[in-house]
This record gives sequence, structure tokens and C-alpha cells, in this order.
Amino acid sequence: MRDVSIIGVGVHPFGRHLTKSILDLGRVAVLAAIADAGVDPRSIGCAYVGNSLAGLLTGQEGIRGQVILHDSGIYDIPVINVENACASGSTAVRGAYLEVAAGTCDVALALGVEKMFVGDTKRTLAALAADSELTLSSSGMQFSAMYAIHPKYNLRGRMDEYGWTREDFAAVAVKNHRHGSLNPSAHRRRELTLEQVLAAPVVAEPLTAPMCSPISDGAAAAIVCATEVLPDAARPGAVTIRACELRSGHFFTSDDRDYKPLANFSSHVFETAGLGPHDLEVAEVHDAMAPVELLIYEQLGLCGPGEGPRLVAGGETLLGGARPVNPSGGLTARGHPVGATGLAQIAEIVWQLRGQAGARQVDPQPRVGLAHNQGGMLASGDSAAYMMTVLTR
Amino acid sequence: MRDVSIIGVGVHPFGRHLTKSILDLGRVAVLAAIADAGVDPRSIGCAYVGNSLAGLLTGQEGIRGQVILHDSGIYDIPVINVENACASGSTAVRGAYLEVAAGTCDVALALGVEKMFVGDTKRTLAALAADSELTLSSSGMQFSAMYAIHPKYNLRGRMDEYGWTREDFAAVAVKNHRHGSLNPSAHRRRELTLEQVLAAPVVAEPLTAPMCSPISDGAAAAIVCATEVLPDAARPGAVTIRACELRSGHFFTSDDRDYKPLANFSSHVFETAGLGPHDLEVAEVHDAMAPVELLIYEQLGLCGPGEGPRLVAGGETLLGGARPVNPSGGLTARGHPVGATGLAQIAEIVWQLRGQAGARQVDPQPRVGLAHNQGGMLASGDSAAYMMTVLTR
Repeated sequence: MRDVSIIGVGVHPFGRHLTKSILDLGRVAVLAAIADAGVDPRSIGCAYVGNSLAGLLTGQEGIRGQVILHDSGIYDIPVINVENACASGSTAVRGAYLEVAAGTCDVALALGVEKMFVGDTKRTLAALAADSELTLSSSGMQFSAMYAIHPKYNLRGRMDEYGWTREDFAAVAVKNHRHGSLNPSAHRRRELTLEQVLAAPVVAEPLTAPMCSPISDGAAAAIVCATEVLPDAARPGAVTIRACELRSGHFFTSDDRDYKPLANFSSHVFETAGLGPHDLEVAEVHDAMAPVELLIYEQLGLCGPGEGPRLVAGGETLLGGARPVNPSGGLTARGHPVGATGLAQIAEIVWQLRGQAGARQVDPQPRVGLAHNQGGMLASGDSAAYMMTVLTR
Repeated sequence: MRDVSIIGVGVHPFGRHLTKSILDLGRVAVLAAIADAGVDPRSIGCAYVGNSLAGLLTGQEGIRGQVILHDSGIYDIPVINVENACASGSTAVRGAYLEVAAGTCDVALALGVEKMFVGDTKRTLAALAADSELTLSSSGMQFSAMYAIHPKYNLRGRMDEYGWTREDFAAVAVKNHRHGSLNPSAHRRRELTLEQVLAAPVVAEPLTAPMCSPISDGAAAAIVCATEVLPDAARPGAVTIRACELRSGHFFTSDDRDYKPLANFSSHVFETAGLGPHDLEVAEVHDAMAPVELLIYEQLGLCGPGEGPRLVAGGETLLGGARPVNPSGGLTARGHPVGATGLAQIAEIVWQLRGQAGARQVDPQPRVGLAHNQGGMLASGDSAAYMMTVLTR
């Protein structure tokens, strides 16, 4: 397998874009990534397109990538449409990475795109949680309720077990909204105080609205290239993929509280990358609900069980701290257009490693970053897709 | 890239299975392929699942593969859901092939599955032709009309140009129904006479109903394995993948009648396989409408322009002829559950090369076979996905 670099990234800003189609969103990200990479679209040898909800939300069930790339000048190549719920965009990156690593082509495109805001929130939520085969409409839960009370997340239970408080949870939302306020591509760009987060409407106790990721539209794209064929001029902007790993599996099936699929998977990913959790200098993680970030810290090995709030309160994971997490604003503030999220995380890490993140730049400029993305729990009974990508400069 | 073999295949019989879910269909094919390969499900290192229409037809938009594999004993591995319209199943095979060739794992699963018959034909046809982004409802055409009159297929126009007759078209349906009558997994298993095909209801002139593939449910699966790790006992049943290639592109955009994307692509595929069209001893091709098979003959290089009817009339592509085409019955008679079709073609070629095709066995037992699968034209304005797989024993 050849070494692979990311040589260009681009996004369509996240937000509510009722008049824009999935094509409009996707094309902006693709053209931005191509421009960033400085490549001729005709040099792209393969494209992976990640999207999750277009069939149910906008009606384009089949061959979404070919439709989105229709007028992009990219054709006569393999186009593979991939889906892994909230991890669809990062799954697209893995596909592009694998093609280039295996040598089917030298340059590949990955796109993640989602059009979620269709003017009917109930329909969007129903599509998100659609499980028509296993448990039928997901025991009636939306994702917020799942994170609040389902045994494997059970934020309410953690309050008893760890002594975590609603203030601890709100502090994560405050941090990520602060980061989002510095990100021109974020959906939510307004800072909030702890009091504002706590006083906001409750979605599913203990989660208030600003702790839950919004319903967003958006897109993100990346161009990957075999490191061995990189022209010298492209090397300064290239970021190396050290690991780009996917795992799926039963998620809620074990009663064993020590069954931690994400923790096991993250050990595997760090081993693949030849790095450990303490080598990370920046991370984007899947804070679909802000407090879940606290659990992800421990699952990634950034702290011991229950110690997450200390990292937030001490400022370690805030911009300016030792290891900023979700400098983009995370899902909580940057937004969460399902199929685009994982790719936007990777774009953020690329910008951070290059020192191009503007007002939200991690300082000193990091050398090692992680993107952690997951999805599919409610739509699949108890299965899931985890994606982790480790990047270095 | 390592050499890769197919070591097991399985299908769920095609037909109308109103009481069976996409899970029921998929599991039968997966378990059959695993049993055929004689592997432990835990040795499977990766799974690709191809499906096209579940979001619109049965409501499972996200993470379909994880749902289908939920109780199969296959988990803690990468699961990638892929979609390429009528080429989704073969795209899944390409993914599994690439993983093993690249060395991410030694054994991989590919599944193609579709549940099309939901008791509402209009809804199924609408999902098939859904183009919500480019031309909006596909100029109102269904696939039958597209094949009949769209410039790039234009069966009606070929009647003028080549002198092809309705009898020539009906003869392909007669051949494929004869083959289907010998296939216990086929949707249509009744022989038809030329008179019966011609007298049947017209769907879109010159196509009568038996010339059009039916709306089918079904599934097919394959287990692929790195050839270098095959145990000696598995070698007799292993079939080598000589090429497994995907290409997408604009399909109807050029006015140049010589613009033949499939012909160009098939040259590339044969070059990759190190073989030519005349090395083929059996082929499964994408006869979504039976007469299209005549055009595919020329695009694959099996005959010159307009010569297709001669191959059928002379019996060359009939079982017992020099180079049988669609011994399974093809899409016309075996049926066409969109996401399963490409994988069922590959399963048929595997059985033929192994000499396990029963009453429809090509004799003498072939050494070289091709599966040709394509999809997406109506759902994408004018783009498409072509998949071709060359197998040898």
C-alpha cells in the first residue's frame, strides 16, 4: 500500500440553505477542494460520494454522486456512492484513500454532502432515525433521547455514576460555541454563556437545545494523492494520512458495561498510525450532543473514566489549551449535515495542521490531529459505523 | 495488488416475495455464500453491501448493510454501503475485491439485495426513475420508453438503421425465457414462443411485456479471498477475478453517434484482463430490455454493428451454441432486483465456470466468463455506472 496525502480540502458553509439543492452544496465543496489542491479535474481518477438521507429527504435515491458531479468536468472514472449514516463523509475519504493506496489511481476525490433542512423538522428527524427493519421506528426515540437515557450513553446515569452535573454538560456547549463563533463556515456562530445554555429549552433532560447539534445543510470535499507522485510545489500543503479506519458492529448488545467498542477500536487506530492518544495536538470528535464529548475523551484515552469535565473546566480542550478539541465548533456549533460531517472534520484538521485555520488556529501549529466520526445507532437497532482518521504534517 | 478469487456465492431466488423483508432476502444469500465458501463468518474481514432503493421503497435509508448483517455473526469489521443504481451489486464486488487485493483483509463479503415488489408498481417505477435534481422526474420517461426511443438506445431507430425487426427483438426474449426455464432461482421460469412474445401487451413500442425485465425481489452474495492464502482444498472451487472495473460518465451528452462509452470501457476491461472478447465462453449481460442485448453484443465486440440478431437466430448465444449469453435467463427472465442483479450475474458465471449450473450448464464447461452490468441512466439525467467483471478458472 502506498502512502497517501490529502492535498486539498473545501467546504460549503454549514447552515440552513433552503433554496440550495444537494447539487449546489456538493459542487461548491468539490470546486473548492480542487482549487485548493491545484489539480486539473481531469486528473482525478476516482470519486467517492458520501450522503445518507437524500432518498427520503429530497428524493434522489439512486446514483447521487454521478448527479452531483454531473457538470463538474469529472467523468469517465469510477464513482462510488457510499453510505454509513453520520459517518458517510469519512467513509468516502476511506474509499478514496484505499484506491490511491492500492494504486488504482494517483488522485481521488471524496465528497460528503447532506441537505437536511427541508422546512419540515419532523420529516428530517424521522429520516434520521429510520429503522424500518429491526426495531421499527427505533423504539420511538430520537437521537437526543438515546444519548440522554440509552444504557450505552446514558448521560443521565453518568450524573449519578461520575457525579457529572448539568453545568459540566453545558460547559462543553459553551466551549464549542466559542470555537464556532470563530469559524466562518459554522452553522452556529454566536457565543453562549453557561447560563444561556442551561436556561435554554430542554430537548431531552439533561440536554438543552444548544447542547444538541442543529439540523444543517452542508458539504465538504477532499482531494487525496499518492505521496510518491506529489510535485515538490504541493508538498508544503500536503497532510499525510497515517490511519483511516472504519469499523462497524453491534453497539448496544452487551450488558457488560466494560464492553467499549470505541475504546477497542481507537487502540487499533493508534497502533495503525504508530502514535498514541497523547501525541494528538488537535482533534475533531463526534459531539452530536455536546456532553458526549466527555465520554469520547475517555474512550479515546485522553483521560480516565469520569475525568472529562476536568479537561473542559481546566481549558485543556479549549482553544489556547494543551490539546484543543473541536476547534471548528464541532457538531454542536459547526453543525451536523449528516453525510458531510466526517469530511468537514477532516478538512478542519487539514487546515489546523497547515496553520490555515484563521481565528481558530491551534497555536503552536499542530503536527498530529485526529478526526473521530460515528453513526447509525438509531437507524440500525444497535449497529454502528465508527471512522477514525489520523493525520500528520 | 494481490490476486483475488471468488470462493463462494449464494442467492435468494428472484421473484415476488411480498412477505419477505430486505433482511430475509439478504441473509439467505449471505448464509448460502458463506456455506459455499466453507468459511467461518468470523474470518470475514470486510463487507460491502449494495442496495439502491430501500430508502424510498421500504424506508431503511441509512446503514442498510449493518441492519441486514445484524444477526449474521459478522461484525466488528468495516461495513461499507454502496449504491450505483442497477450496478450496485457489482459495485459491492468491486469494493470487496479492492480490499483484498490491497491487503486490508484476506476474506471479504459482497452482498447485493433489493426489495422492489411492495404491492404498488407505480411507487416502484417512480423510485427507479427518481431524478429529483437534474431533469426532474426524468422527462416523464420510464426505462422501457428510454430504451425504445432515447437517441442512445433507440431500438425503434435501429429498426430503420439496421433493418432489425420486432421478431429479432422477440427472439432474444424467447432465448432468455428458455434459459430462465432451466434456472430454479429465476423469476420467470416459463418458456415462451415467438408468437407469445409478439402478442403480449405492448409496454413501449416495440417492447412487449416479456421483453422487459420484471419487478423482482432478490439477493446475491459472494465471498472473495486472496488467492495466495487459499487452502489447497478451496482451490478447485475458486474462480479468479481477472478484471473488476467500474466506470461512470455522461451517457447521452454527445450527439456523435460514434461516442460509445460502453465500447471504450469494454476495450479497457479486456486489456486489464489480458483477454479479448473472443476469449469469452459465457457471458451475463445487462438485458434490462431483451433487445438491448443485441446492442451489447456489438458494444462488447462480439459482433459488428447490426449483426446481433444473427447471433441469436443462429443459436450462437443460446445454450448449446458457441458462446451462450445470459444462461441464467438474464434480467429478462431471471429477474432484475436492482441492487442484486450485478452480483447474481457474477454468481451465475462462477457456477458456470465450476460446472455447477445444472440444467443450464454451458457445455463444454467454460474457462472464461464475463458479467456486464450497468445502471443509473434515468435517475441521473445522463450519467451512468458501468461494471464489468472478467472471471476465469
